[in-house]
Amino acid sequence: MSTNSRPLILVSNDDGIFSNGIKALVEVAAEFGEVEIVAPDRQQSAVGHAITVSTPLRAQSFKLDNRFNGKAVNGTPADCVKLAHNQLLSRKPDLVVSGINHGSNAGINILYSGTVSAATEGTILGYPSIAFSCTEFSEDADLTGCQDAARKVIRFVLEHGLEKGVTLNLNAPAGPLKGIKWARQAKSRYVEEFEGRVDPHNRDYYWMAGKFELLEKDGGSDIDALEKGYASLTPIQYDLTDHELLKKYSKTEF
Amino acid sequence: MSTNSRPLILVSNDDGIFSNGIKALVEVAAEFGEVEIVAPDRQQSAVGHAITVSTPLRAQSFKLDNRFNGKAVNGTPADCVKLAHNQLLSRKPDLVVSGINHGSNAGINILYSGTVSAATEGTILGYPSIAFSCTEFSEDADLTGCQDAARKVIRFVLEHGLEKGVTLNLNAPAGPLKGIKWARQAKSRYVEEFEGRVDPHNRDYYWMAGKFELLEKDGGSDIDALEKGYASLTPIQYDLTDHELLKKYSKTEF
Repeated sequence: MSTNSRPLILVSNDDGIFSNGIKALVEVAAEFGEVEIVAPDRQQSAVGHAITVSTPLRAQSFKLDNRFNGKAVNGTPADCVKLAHNQLLSRKPDLVVSGINHGSNAGINILYSGTVSAATEGTILGYPSIAFSCTEFSEDADLTGCQDAARKVIRFVLEHGLEKGVTLNLNAPAGPLKGIKWARQAKSRYVEEFEGRVDPHNRDYYWMAGKFELLEKDGGSDIDALEKGYASLTPIQYDLTDHELLKKYSKTEF
Repeated sequence: MSTNSRPLILVSNDDGIFSNGIKALVEVAAEFGEVEIVAPDRQQSAVGHAITVSTPLRAQSFKLDNRFNGKAVNGTPADCVKLAHNQLLSRKPDLVVSGINHGSNAGINILYSGTVSAATEGTILGYPSIAFSCTEFSEDADLTGCQDAARKVIRFVLEHGLEKGVTLNLNAPAGPLKGIKWARQAKSRYVEEFEGRVDPHNRDYYWMAGKFELLEKDGGSDIDALEKGYASLTPIQYDLTDHELLKKYSKTEF
C-alpha cells in the first residue's frame, strides 16, 4: 500500500508544538493515516478566530518525537490551518483535527477558543474538522480518555464524513472515558473578570481572572455532560445569523 | 436634567482610538446620550474574539476631540468591553456600540472581526450592542451614510431594546445612505490566501492576501444588500450549536 492511499490528517492546536496535548492527538491520528502537523510555535490560547494580516508568517520545519513532520508557524491557530491548506501541506487533507487543548472549550469558551477556531477554519476550507479539549488545564493531565474519545470520533468522521459547514467540538474530562454524549453549547458567561492591581510605579493594571458561570440547569448541554463525567460532542456551525429574529424584524423599516 | 438621566453609551472599535471611524461613531452616539470610549490603543483588526489572559491590561485616560472621555487599552476589542464593564465605566451602559470599522464585516468577515467581537462581548455581558462597519477600507472614506444608518439603528434600539443574546451587525457602503436592508450573513470564504516571498536571507515567508469569494447568489444576504448599494443589518447570536444536525446525530452512539 502506498503511503498516499492512507488518509492525510492535518493536526493543529493553540497550545503550540511543545504541548502534551498535540502529542497525544498526533498519536491517535497516526493510527488512522498519515499525519502532518502545522501548529503555532508558541502558546496561543484565547486568541479566538484571530488571523494575522499585518505581519508576515514563517513556517519552521520540525519533527515531533523524531517521527512526525511538522511546521511551526509564528501565527494563530486559524493562520496555521489557512497556511497549511494554501502553502504547506504535501496534498489536500482528508481531515483536520485540533488539540488536545489543555482546558475546556465548552459553553461560552467556544467563542474564545483558538483550538476550536483552527477546526472551524478547516471546515470553512471544506475539510471535515474536529476540535478536542480536555477540561483539565494541567500540562500533565491524564489525556487517555480524551484520546479514546478522539479515536471513536475520528473513526466516525472518516467512515461517514461530515456535513459541509459543520465542525465537531469534543470536550472530555481527564482520566478514563466514561462515554460520549451529543450535546449543545451551554448558555454561560464569565463574571468578576478582572483583578485590579497597582504596580511599583503606582499605576493600575488588570489581570483577567474570570469565573465561569453556567446560566442554565437544563440537561443536554456540553457542560451538563461534562459534569456527569461524560465527554461532550457538539456540532457547531458559523452562520451567526439569528434567523428567527431576522424573520421577526424583517418588516421593520428604517 | 442631570447628566446621568441620559443613556450611557459605551463606544469601542478595533481600529484603535486614532481612527476616523470611532470619531464618526462617537459623534452620532453623543446625539443620544453620554459617551464613554474604551478602545484599543492601537490597530487590532482581524483579532476575532481574542482575549488577553497572559499579560496584564492597562488603561490610559484620554480625551477625544477635547470633549469625550476615553480609555485606551493595550488589549483586544473584546478585552476593552470586558474591562469597561468590570472596571472602567462610571455606571452600567445602556448601549454598547463598536466601530465605525474601516472595512466590511459582512459574510465570513464576521468571524474574523474585532469590531463585531466588541459588540458580541457587550451582548454576552447583557447590554444591547451594535457593530458598525463601512465597506471601504480607506481611512478617509465618506462615513456620512454609515453615520446616518447608525443614527437610525441606535434610535431603534434605544426605543425598542434588543432581545437578550442578540447583537446587531450593520455594514454600509461609503457615501450617502440609500437605505437599510435586514439581511442574513452571506455564505462566503477567502481563496488564494497567501503570497509566498523569499527574504534577503533566502528564507520563505508568507503574506496573507486572500480574495473574498461569495458562495451564493441568493437575495437576502448582507453582501447582496451591499452590492445593491444598501446598508445591511444582521441580527447575530453566539450559540454556535447546529441544532438540526444535533437532532439528527443524537441517536448515533459511540
